[in-house]
Amino acid sequence: MTARPTRHPVSRIARRKGGTTSAVRIVPEETPIAFSYGGTTHAVMMATPADIEDFALGFSLSEGIIENASDISEMAVEDHDQGIDFQITLVGDRRDALTARRRHMAGPVGCGLCGIESIDEALKPVASVGSVGLRLTAGDIVQSVRLLSARQPLHNETGAVHAAGFYVPGKGIVAAREDVGRHNALDKLIGALARAGIDGASGAVVVTSRVSIEMVQKTAIIGAPVLIAVSAPTALAIRTAEAAGISLVALVRGDEFDIYTHTDRIQAGANAHVA
Amino acid sequence: MTARPTRHPVSRIARRKGGTTSAVRIVPEETPIAFSYGGTTHAVMMATPADIEDFALGFSLSEGIIENASDISEMAVEDHDQGIDFQITLVGDRRDALTARRRHMAGPVGCGLCGIESIDEALKPVASVGSVGLRLTAGDIVQSVRLLSARQPLHNETGAVHAAGFYVPGKGIVAAREDVGRHNALDKLIGALARAGIDGASGAVVVTSRVSIEMVQKTAIIGAPVLIAVSAPTALAIRTAEAAGISLVALVRGDEFDIYTHTDRIQAGANAHVA
Repeated sequence: MTARPTRHPVSRIARRKGGTTSAVRIVPEETPIAFSYGGTTHAVMMATPADIEDFALGFSLSEGIIENASDISEMAVEDHDQGIDFQITLVGDRRDALTARRRHMAGPVGCGLCGIESIDEALKPVASVGSVGLRLTAGDIVQSVRLLSARQPLHNETGAVHAAGFYVPGKGIVAAREDVGRHNALDKLIGALARAGIDGASGAVVVTSRVSIEMVQKTAIIGAPVLIAVSAPTALAIRTAEAAGISLVALVRGDEFDIYTHTDRIQAGANAHVA
Repeated sequence: MTARPTRHPVSRIARRKGGTTSAVRIVPEETPIAFSYGGTTHAVMMATPADIEDFALGFSLSEGIIENASDISEMAVEDHDQGIDFQITLVGDRRDALTARRRHMAGPVGCGLCGIESIDEALKPVASVGSVGLRLTAGDIVQSVRLLSARQPLHNETGAVHAAGFYVPGKGIVAAREDVGRHNALDKLIGALARAGIDGASGAVVVTSRVSIEMVQKTAIIGAPVLIAVSAPTALAIRTAEAAGISLVALVRGDEFDIYTHTDRIQAGANAHVA
């Protein structure tokens, strides 16, 4: 498995010209990545096979399987023809907690939950980020998206992957990760921040994608007070950001953007904090 | 739960102008929808709460839980404050098959599969569509995307949802469905086609999104020989389309597009089949 994009020959047709020409498109790779804890798979994600250790750590954090990086005692990548099996070993306490959680959900039936329980699980309350002191100017918002686009090498080659970055005022984008899936890109970023010891409260999560509730839930997990998105949010994402105390900024186009929730952290000033 | 989009007030900032104005954005709803078979949840999807019966039927088909619409004896929607619990009752044979499948996957651990089994499950071979006689011109491809955009009322309001449609040469888009999730939109379309008794071999699936492997797997499930996408495919989606005998057309922009696999079904002619 390689993270490199593939060059793929295509036949290109322009309707009016009528003819067919040959061309080459560079397309991103997509691979099943299984995360196994204690030898048993917890989930299989279709993802870009790059930054897999960040992905494993970020996924474990955002799924609530661990609380911090030290809850993982060992990680091992097993590379197969068809995909990647990522084996994770948890420390004793965490292993016991996961076993208990799995037992609760077990039984000879689906996930073992009834419909209402499953709905509640999908909407489980997120931690509030509280009154974090972060303040951003309009210049910071615009700059964060512009700086992220300079950190998307795979997207620049393929035009077909998402990115998630972390913007700290005065420092710029301090980490960025890419993936064919927007949730995966954010999980990779969360893992990268944990590995680098960067506090989520110190900056804003910046994503190139739309904002569904999961993007807000993951932002809340790391305690980041601001989520900036190039594209649009859903109504449920807005309600969740409101409840979590997160400032949701979206539809950043050129130097304009909309603030959906907790506007107090964003100031109209044109200048970004100096890097 | 309503399928109607929400009007949400936003503060709009234009960096250079420096000021903040008030505006209203129309945002799509997103709701947890639990699909329960025999009283136990199989999956919870975050989806747009519209066309839920189509979604339930299409999901059941594309997950291989049923083989045709008559395998479902009863459907009942239970509307809760926080989401929708969709209760599905299967006919005897299918109920037994699902129970056996669940038993195989059960145990006090995750999904009960090891990493390699899970990877194989994610990549399970798709049925080949075989040598279906469908032929499309370049004009059909361009027209299919243009006609689909006329069938996206929720997207036209919100600018933030995906659509999947079914194009039959000479008839145009015969069905179209929308959702905040591109997989959901395609599952809804599959359900709508099954309910209308439209044969998947008679036309092309048209999607507004990128093409990951799941979009190809779902297209193969209904035996549609052509998949047309506005955006780009992944390398794995291309390999899967190649193996399934599906003509994959993507990056339809204006009157140009690229054919990635099985080019023989697409002719360079400028005219669409007459409606």
